[in-house]
Amino acid sequence: MGQTIQIEKANSLKEKPDVSTVKFGTVFTDYMFTSDYTPEHGWEEPAIVPYKNLEISPAANGIHYGQSVFEGLKAYRNGEDILLFRPDENFKRLNTSLERLAMPKINEETSLNALYELIKLERDWVPDGPGQSLYIRPFIFADEAFLGVRSARTYKYNIILSPVAGYYGGQLDPTSIYVEDDYVRAVRGGVGDIKCAGNYAASILAQQKAAELGYEQVLWLDGVEQKYVEEVGSMNIFFVRNNELITPKLNGSILSGITRKSLIQLAEYKGYTVKEERILLDDLRDGLRDGSISEIFGSGTAAVISPIGRMNVHGEDYVVNDNQVGPVAQDLYDHYTGIQYGTLEDPFGWIVKL
Amino acid sequence: MGQTIQIEKANSLKEKPDVSTVKFGTVFTDYMFTSDYTPEHGWEEPAIVPYKNLEISPAANGIHYGQSVFEGLKAYRNGEDILLFRPDENFKRLNTSLERLAMPKINEETSLNALYELIKLERDWVPDGPGQSLYIRPFIFADEAFLGVRSARTYKYNIILSPVAGYYGGQLDPTSIYVEDDYVRAVRGGVGDIKCAGNYAASILAQQKAAELGYEQVLWLDGVEQKYVEEVGSMNIFFVRNNELITPKLNGSILSGITRKSLIQLAEYKGYTVKEERILLDDLRDGLRDGSISEIFGSGTAAVISPIGRMNVHGEDYVVNDNQVGPVAQDLYDHYTGIQYGTLEDPFGWIVKL
Ligand SMILES: Cc1ncc(COP(=O)(O)O)c(C=O)c1O
Ligand SMILES: Cc1ncc(COP(=O)(O)O)c(C=O)c1O
Repeated sequence: MGQTIQIEKANSLKEKPDVSTVKFGTVFTDYMFTSDYTPEHGWEEPAIVPYKNLEISPAANGIHYGQSVFEGLKAYRNGEDILLFRPDENFKRLNTSLERLAMPKINEETSLNALYELIKLERDWVPDGPGQSLYIRPFIFADEAFLGVRSARTYKYNIILSPVAGYYGGQLDPTSIYVEDDYVRAVRGGVGDIKCAGNYAASILAQQKAAELGYEQVLWLDGVEQKYVEEVGSMNIFFVRNNELITPKLNGSILSGITRKSLIQLAEYKGYTVKEERILLDDLRDGLRDGSISEIFGSGTAAVISPIGRMNVHGEDYVVNDNQVGPVAQDLYDHYTGIQYGTLEDPFGWIVKL
Repeated sequence: MGQTIQIEKANSLKEKPDVSTVKFGTVFTDYMFTSDYTPEHGWEEPAIVPYKNLEISPAANGIHYGQSVFEGLKAYRNGEDILLFRPDENFKRLNTSLERLAMPKINEETSLNALYELIKLERDWVPDGPGQSLYIRPFIFADEAFLGVRSARTYKYNIILSPVAGYYGGQLDPTSIYVEDDYVRAVRGGVGDIKCAGNYAASILAQQKAAELGYEQVLWLDGVEQKYVEEVGSMNIFFVRNNELITPKLNGSILSGITRKSLIQLAEYKGYTVKEERILLDDLRDGLRDGSISEIFGSGTAAVISPIGRMNVHGEDYVVNDNQVGPVAQDLYDHYTGIQYGTLEDPFGWIVKL
């Protein structure tokens, strides 16, 4: 890349939906970003084109052998301003993912500029209801028509946009989690710390099992000993223990969430003590029993903070904070979303205003 | 499915290539099988259509979240006869893979019949050179336009065909392997025992590292202790120790190869003792040092048997059987490929003749 971005105009624009009734990730805007990679020319023909189907070979390598990575971030509206939250972090992580799957890296600067162009063009799609936003999905996969296990020669890079409602209309609402001690999501030396397609498909069966048992999400343990707490489906996890915030230390099999990282920074700024630790499930359970764990919540781009009100450990059900939103979760949520929507000051330089 | 299979004829046929010069998995035949899944109608519209690009949504769930599985088998030519090797086993394993990724199962019977129709139509594409065959690739992925982690509602099922040359022109030739003790391919509780797209992308970096160190393939260890031998890139592994055949026991993270299973059966039929064991890498290394391990070979559909002549364990290089094809590998290879090509009797009922 590094070239200027061509814009191909659409003949007609879609009608914008009532975002509050839209299911997450099912409605897409009028335009998308696209760029193709060849070994000869690198990432070329960066363009913004009308949102349309992709034409790919049935032998497209990424479908067969999984060279496919993605990112997820959001654009928020504050009146006429459109705000992005740390988009540089997402493109940085995209490159980490690309590297791990032996895929060609992107130019982060060019990607950011392309995203800004795209969002400016699509600014009317950024909704303004409480908790609403425009979800941004950059993704890259191997499209070389070739059956075999090696780094592919050609790739497709797209960014698509989807207007989304806030979880629970922008209010916090406790969820429930099931601690999975049979299925394994990731192991050190594997790919649990990147956002690649394969990680998610592998998690669905455990998710279904949790749902059958009456829990909304899965809490994963480490893949080696199955004793340490790692993360929730697509969220990192935090515990409040004796008024301190604790979260599992990054260990090579946990995804380094941008929300996690930013919440740690915000919490410390606000005067909380934050500790990154290896957390034994049994210690967590003891803390639930003796009441020293007063809150648990997940963190991620989709829900920002998701308080956990009920948790199943080894078949036993524990209620956390009376299944109510706790004060720490609420405090961090209010401050964090205030920064994201531009209603509170951003002392960290996180926000890009378009 | 269960319906009759529609055939849409192509307007013109491709010129057939000289298969001996074709790179594996890069040339495809004139037709492909296709069927689409919806929750309302199950697998419907099974059809044989001209080989062509797929049109999919940029939000196709399988690309983003990896619900994508495949199989690999071959058709062999013996004069006017076209022979398939245990195709039922591949569709059975496809269902195992589908189940693990919470994807809808296929009807194995209907799939077999569709495959037979397709191969009959494409019989002229089955090459007749030594070691040559028609590689068959069934694959299924989620194509629902939807960003989110749950079992998708719609799927695409295709079978494509690719004429391939024999490895080394149908001769055996020793390869070299590097024992990977840093990266991990699979762990119990994960998806190492199925053929899903994500497993392969995750392995490429280790493959590149092995290549840089001068080895052609990677030998993976178990993901928990990183001490037990599991399998090679896309092959299972066998050792000859004191004239007995040893192969790692299936443990939930090793793919259950159809070649592995069939070779065990053939070897026992031929009077070999075969043992399925948990194999410590250190025991293997000791066996290489003291000479009790006389042969090592990989087994898989692509190469059938691939003798290993050189192996790197913890940074030390060991030569196996003077880097020559061993007698056991040769004996099994000759018998096995004899059955596959119909030049030797098939006492097991493995062959389907079309
Ligand atoms: C596996 C996993 N863990 C954690 C997260 C949270 O990361 P972030 O805060 O960057 O959204 C996500 C979602 O992106 C994820 O997919
Ligand atoms: C990971 C893996 N192991 C082993 C094998 C060998 O299996 P099969 O003998 O069925 O080809 C394959 C190839 O299919 C594979 O992908």
